[in-house]
Amino acid sequence: MTMTSAARTIAPTAVVGMVGGGQLARMTQQAAIALGIELHVLTPHDSDPAIRAGAQFLPGQPDDLDALVALAAATDVVTFDHEHVPNHHLRALVEAGYAVRPDPSAKLLAQDKSVARRVLGDAGFAVPAYEDVAAGDRAAVLRFADAHGWPLVIKAPRGGYDGRGVFVVESESALSGQQGLDGLDRWLLEAHVPIATELAVLVARRPNGQTVTYPVVETVQRDGICHELVMPARIDAAVADRAAAVGTAIAERIGATGMLAVELFLTTDGDLVVNELAARPHNSGHATIDASVTSQFENHLRAVLDWPLGAATQLAPSAATVNLLGPAHPVDLARTVPLALGDPTVRLHLYDKSITPGRKVGHVTVLGHDPQAALVAARAAAAAVLAP
Amino acid sequence: MTMTSAARTIAPTAVVGMVGGGQLARMTQQAAIALGIELHVLTPHDSDPAIRAGAQFLPGQPDDLDALVALAAATDVVTFDHEHVPNHHLRALVEAGYAVRPDPSAKLLAQDKSVARRVLGDAGFAVPAYEDVAAGDRAAVLRFADAHGWPLVIKAPRGGYDGRGVFVVESESALSGQQGLDGLDRWLLEAHVPIATELAVLVARRPNGQTVTYPVVETVQRDGICHELVMPARIDAAVADRAAAVGTAIAERIGATGMLAVELFLTTDGDLVVNELAARPHNSGHATIDASVTSQFENHLRAVLDWPLGAATQLAPSAATVNLLGPAHPVDLARTVPLALGDPTVRLHLYDKSITPGRKVGHVTVLGHDPQAALVAARAAAAAVLAP
Repeated sequence: MTMTSAARTIAPTAVVGMVGGGQLARMTQQAAIALGIELHVLTPHDSDPAIRAGAQFLPGQPDDLDALVALAAATDVVTFDHEHVPNHHLRALVEAGYAVRPDPSAKLLAQDKSVARRVLGDAGFAVPAYEDVAAGDRAAVLRFADAHGWPLVIKAPRGGYDGRGVFVVESESALSGQQGLDGLDRWLLEAHVPIATELAVLVARRPNGQTVTYPVVETVQRDGICHELVMPARIDAAVADRAAAVGTAIAERIGATGMLAVELFLTTDGDLVVNELAARPHNSGHATIDASVTSQFENHLRAVLDWPLGAATQLAPSAATVNLLGPAHPVDLARTVPLALGDPTVRLHLYDKSITPGRKVGHVTVLGHDPQAALVAARAAAAAVLAP
Repeated sequence: MTMTSAARTIAPTAVVGMVGGGQLARMTQQAAIALGIELHVLTPHDSDPAIRAGAQFLPGQPDDLDALVALAAATDVVTFDHEHVPNHHLRALVEAGYAVRPDPSAKLLAQDKSVARRVLGDAGFAVPAYEDVAAGDRAAVLRFADAHGWPLVIKAPRGGYDGRGVFVVESESALSGQQGLDGLDRWLLEAHVPIATELAVLVARRPNGQTVTYPVVETVQRDGICHELVMPARIDAAVADRAAAVGTAIAERIGATGMLAVELFLTTDGDLVVNELAARPHNSGHATIDASVTSQFENHLRAVLDWPLGAATQLAPSAATVNLLGPAHPVDLARTVPLALGDPTVRLHLYDKSITPGRKVGHVTVLGHDPQAALVAARAAAAAVLAP
């Protein structure tokens, strides 16, 4: 059990740089350990979830080019835990010869919803009717409503997440009273789609073109925040096949590398419409940690390193994940967690984040034969973790 | 994505102290992250595998009572990654009011093979014929051989692992020429058992008495070192049931807490005979990381904390694990690992240890429908990782 001094100089199998140190970086770090990969995280906060899980801490802001260059210089490849990195900085890294995955053009589609609509629409993928107009252009909104009807959606093309920057406007009078629109740089107008089910397709793609697509995930959103997942989605197999094909085709079309999450609306008419992209590991893929041969986090690492991808085969007929969103009351995890684990099937994932209202602080996954039973069990465990 | 300063004071759900920082502590640390458990490791080496995976480093030797007290004082419970802790120190910790799991009396059975033989034999469990004699007492050996035949086994009652301190002696003349016997404090003589298959039963047991038993594992040993595992073992279901019952009964009889590995011989006559105990996570349980709802490492943590245990249900019909034992030639993992991952079913676990001949530096697990196919795939991947 004793180690020689040589142990101090063990080389990692690879060194990956990640911009952002949140829970996605944390779960990437967890996957990195077993593969001997060293993960360096650029974040201003040494208390970030990834650092608390053992990732190397590189202090700096995600919009600081010098910090990004330092990250790139210290690692084999730069990738991301979020979308909030200036795209022109990424282009500067590529021009300086650093590996950035996904590359800036693919990343842009996850950063700018307006660009994504245009690129994917032009490529023939079904997207909602949309128009990118100047912020405050009420006349344009009314013309758009004349063409596509009320309600309509006004989005911030950039910078929103977890439902922030997305406004459903029911009528002309509602438009006048809508809070928050003034703060947007541009208005991306979209036709409101009648949604039957929200889906997500998770695709890992490496630079050599190999892709692996996970079973299509059903997501339950409330106020734009993902609350629950069921994998595979409870939809017809033919629809699932179509959705997976759309997700994989988009990954190939935009040249994504790493994980790509393609959010789709299954409409009440049975159509599949592209909603948004995330060019990184994504909340909709959290069930893959426990339910898949290879998690999305491990496949993100393998993909950005251009290593062979792992199987996305599901290990149980059904998996349900419930996010732990901070409640208004205080929670004593040391007391609640052992109670929540009373169900032996519960898989708990805490993010080491302080609990504030609405904040994602962890998730619970349950595998089973029946999706509804798994969901009920996961909900019960989540409620137990967050009990007062 | 920004965090408040409150994040710096997030309380762990529990704090566990582990004596030893090797790969077992490393994989325990990996399990601790998701549960919000802080793991403190007592080891002299800051480069140990567990520290490299983010465990807290408490410098000190495992036989230093002051260091053990410091570990106990900083944590909720003290447990172990190995057996090399003086048992009287553990009793001193208990007398000082600290929680030690397993407790010193159960731990002693994993530390002293002679005590284990006596306690388990007296309790009615099938053990090989044995006799504990003074080191060098050749007359006692010849009397034992007269009673039980050649070959016989001479073991160091304490301190051996991975086959060290175990000698198979074929004859009286071989006894004279046997190297290494002089260094032993005592000689534990054992009748040689005709082995059909070596098995291991992994049992998690918490202080309140709850136990969870994993599917019986088949182990392939060479020179006393575990090379391969197949879970579940390729044996009759009735034999597996008997083996699981023996393992569970031993855990209950000795009051084990945490993981207990019970190594059994299935003899050519179809009998089950107890070989050795390990009162901690064990190499024979490594397949549980990928193949079980709850890994042995997570259940060890839950058990020593007296938390409810997780399900030991297996997620695939068969799992095979092959240990990565350091070869004589140099290995460049940065080059070999991507090649080894060319099989998408391969689950790789590296321990961040420098590679020296014979040293366990990782393992590979493959799940599948057919155990032999899984084993062949795992062997191929292991060979690829360790290729020159």
